[in-house]
Amino acid sequence: MLKVGVYGANGRVGQLLVKNLTEDSETQVAALCERDKIDYHAPEGSLVTNDAKIFLDSCEAAIDFTVPEATEALLKAALKRPRPLVIGTTGLNDAQRALLEEASEIMPILYATNMSAGIALLKKLVQMTAEKLGDFDIEIVEQHHRYKKDAPSGTALTLAEFAAKGRGLDLEKVRVSGRDGITGERSKDEIGVMAIRGGDVVGRHTVGFYNDGEFIELNHTATSRETFSKGAVRACKWLVNQPAGLYDISDCLGL
Amino acid sequence: MLKVGVYGANGRVGQLLVKNLTEDSETQVAALCERDKIDYHAPEGSLVTNDAKIFLDSCEAAIDFTVPEATEALLKAALKRPRPLVIGTTGLNDAQRALLEEASEIMPILYATNMSAGIALLKKLVQMTAEKLGDFDIEIVEQHHRYKKDAPSGTALTLAEFAAKGRGLDLEKVRVSGRDGITGERSKDEIGVMAIRGGDVVGRHTVGFYNDGEFIELNHTATSRETFSKGAVRACKWLVNQPAGLYDISDCLGL
Amino acid sequence: MLKVGVYGANGRVGQLLVKNLTEDSETQVAALCERDKIDYHAPEGSLVTNDAKIFLDSCEAAIDFTVPEATEALLKAALKRPRPLVIGTTGLNDAQRALLEEASEIMPILYATNMSAGIALLKKLVQMTAEKLGDFDIEIVEQHHRYKKDAPSGTALTLAEFAAKGRGLDLEKVRVSGRDGITGERSKDEIGVMAIRGGDVVGRHTVGFYNDGEFIELNHTATSRETFSKGAVRACKWLVNQPAGLYDISDCLGL
Amino acid sequence: MLKVGVYGANGRVGQLLVKNLTEDSETQVAALCERDKIDYHAPEGSLVTNDAKIFLDSCEAAIDFTVPEATEALLKAALKRPRPLVIGTTGLNDAQRALLEEASEIMPILYATNMSAGIALLKKLVQMTAEKLGDFDIEIVEQHHRYKKDAPSGTALTLAEFAAKGRGLDLEKVRVSGRDGITGERSKDEIGVMAIRGGDVVGRHTVGFYNDGEFIELNHTATSRETFSKGAVRACKWLVNQPAGLYDISDCLGL
Repeated sequence: MLKVGVYGANGRVGQLLVKNLTEDSETQVAALCERDKIDYHAPEGSLVTNDAKIFLDSCEAAIDFTVPEATEALLKAALKRPRPLVIGTTGLNDAQRALLEEASEIMPILYATNMSAGIALLKKLVQMTAEKLGDFDIEIVEQHHRYKKDAPSGTALTLAEFAAKGRGLDLEKVRVSGRDGITGERSKDEIGVMAIRGGDVVGRHTVGFYNDGEFIELNHTATSRETFSKGAVRACKWLVNQPAGLYDISDCLGL
Repeated sequence: MLKVGVYGANGRVGQLLVKNLTEDSETQVAALCERDKIDYHAPEGSLVTNDAKIFLDSCEAAIDFTVPEATEALLKAALKRPRPLVIGTTGLNDAQRALLEEASEIMPILYATNMSAGIALLKKLVQMTAEKLGDFDIEIVEQHHRYKKDAPSGTALTLAEFAAKGRGLDLEKVRVSGRDGITGERSKDEIGVMAIRGGDVVGRHTVGFYNDGEFIELNHTATSRETFSKGAVRACKWLVNQPAGLYDISDCLGL
Repeated sequence: MLKVGVYGANGRVGQLLVKNLTEDSETQVAALCERDKIDYHAPEGSLVTNDAKIFLDSCEAAIDFTVPEATEALLKAALKRPRPLVIGTTGLNDAQRALLEEASEIMPILYATNMSAGIALLKKLVQMTAEKLGDFDIEIVEQHHRYKKDAPSGTALTLAEFAAKGRGLDLEKVRVSGRDGITGERSKDEIGVMAIRGGDVVGRHTVGFYNDGEFIELNHTATSRETFSKGAVRACKWLVNQPAGLYDISDCLGL
Repeated sequence: MLKVGVYGANGRVGQLLVKNLTEDSETQVAALCERDKIDYHAPEGSLVTNDAKIFLDSCEAAIDFTVPEATEALLKAALKRPRPLVIGTTGLNDAQRALLEEASEIMPILYATNMSAGIALLKKLVQMTAEKLGDFDIEIVEQHHRYKKDAPSGTALTLAEFAAKGRGLDLEKVRVSGRDGITGERSKDEIGVMAIRGGDVVGRHTVGFYNDGEFIELNHTATSRETFSKGAVRACKWLVNQPAGLYDISDCLGL
């Protein structure tokens, strides 16, 4: 039984991780890390703490779906207690990314803003289409539930990065997040990334490629939030057998 | 044969109007108004001018798809030469709207930012849905070709107005045209209106209503630009039999 | 506290009904009816039986999501023990429909193949569009999870009936459920109803209206199965205050 | 100037080919082949005939969008008068396919049921997705105008073949073209290919991959019929520089 720690145990994904790790016959929840009290009954035999070091000491691998500052704290603690880490936190800044890379030199880390198999493949399809259909205009629309606090989603930005990569563009220079008023004609290189919010939509992402006479739209829809937590558990089981390094979900799926 | 004038004869829709009016057995092109030279061969027997008065003197009814200032000039000329007018110009300001209403007291004017039967009906469906499903979040996505210079489209704004009307909201206070960064949770009343640009898309509009457990999306897609010009010709033939007043495309369709 | 019976307690919707009725502060589960043993722990104080008469004797109102023969048995028992009944069973034959109408003369019955507010409204929108846009071709696509055993869905057939009603057509004469080979041109009156199956899709229905130059697509997507069970509970609470008669979900929503 | 022949000159695509070849500065229409009279004014200097041999004698390369029997006649004539041939006819039987392959040994032939760049790429994406996401259910929906006489479209069948190839399946054994009645649960290997008809839709194809928790939908939409004729002209200009052999549109695009 692989002893896994859940970092961010009260989070939306954190709670599902506890459920999925408990149900999986190869894993068990060894530790829960959360700033405040746990909202629910912790699984039998698991340690609850708000200290990243104690947390890491109690598990063989850890999964983290939190916020950038919390992830930073985890990585710093892990430098002295290396563990296979699956990280799904979005919005890391440059310094935090650098820390992630530093840590990955001494432990295996899988970082992905989306743990689903479908999104892992979609990233490849998007890059390929952007490259092969070089004169098609690229526009992305993402949709999430009304409680989501940031926009666009980390996944949409990742998809946009793969599109920009296929074109040899710097996303930050070409990304457009809204259009209002006299905008003028669309410039060839811009990549629109629009965010729709409402209801309880788990996640829909559409990457469109538009040209004279035809267009292609590649869509991914998550129908259940467990897609992400189950993907993270699957990734964690794979990661414990890898050498130190920085991995993506597509490595784990052999894409 | 109804003698119709095309105001804005070089425009994208203007050129289709000349084609459709010529093909229609009940209408003929009597006059063309354009600031510059006409890009094509004017139909036999039609007068070409850049003067709105001479233009109106030469026709029994006129159709105008231009820009706000040009429409203003037409309306001023029409105050002394009242004619049934079909106007499809978008982006009128308050003064221009007031002029439109003043003119409609002495001549029949049909004003619509979209002349298609489908959009005319969709406006009703949107208002009804906004009213009946009062706790669903409303989001609109519109999509047009890469050459469109303004955003959101006049049609998208009209649909948003009908949605706001169904909720008793003031659109200007609740409209959102982009989301980027830490936006916080969606507020209950906001209405997103997002614009996508690319390829040669004639026009797609989707009005979505999202709630816990379910959502509804009402979509209209124009597959040909003639949808608008043919709708204007049909409207013009209907308008010449109406008394002075301000009409909408839905009046003409009996919706 | 309204004492509600769940008829078909092991069913997919039946189990959600038990959950929703228990969570709702105005209702409680008084009785469960099921042919076999209950798969789960019955709520405290509830009676479990496989006899429709004993079942009805134990509750003030009942909700039924089963199969046609089971619904028939419930209706027969209810003729001597009238109770407000919410029925969501699909596929009733003519005799069973007649029995339903007979029973509704002495008790209030709400019958709907889909209990969601969105579908209730969509039926109206579909009929209206079919009527107002009389020369648009009508095509319906429905999509459900891979375990669904019948096609098209009851909801798709209901939507098709509302479309046919808007055109004054008899659905049975115009419905098409597949196209393969040399089919010839589409006939004006046919209504395609196509069924897609796969994954864990809860339910998507799109009613499309297609004409030269434009089309409209009206879509409903259920994102959670609780949409149906919660809709049934809401309907049940409304129904107990109504006189005998046959009601639709739209009556309950005031549509 | 490349002297190109249009085989099937009265056809929907045939007429567009004449227009596109005339407009292209590198090509000219040298010959038109049609059973009956040409519906329009043949381009200056072009020969009109109903004899495939005379037709081939008059051109350096030919493009054929007709019906299987007509394509058979062209191939037989070409065996003695080899020319680069671009063929877009759908529905060839096994014998006609064999003839195509035989002919391609002595002349370059590009055969594709869809000449658009987007569909050429989509075929690759579909095969890749079918292979990499091996446990997702595959369903295809295609949509065309009301005048289309066969179903499913040749393009939909081609996409289905690429999906089946990615799974190592024989399409003829797993294809489903309609669902009605008590169908039972979906079998793992079946591939639904559903045809929607209506309005003037040029062509929409959606290949969906559905699993628990998520799905992917890859869509191609043609917004203009010239997508196909322009693609054929581009292919023809490329083909004349190739050795004998059987090519696909993806070879011409370097996909």
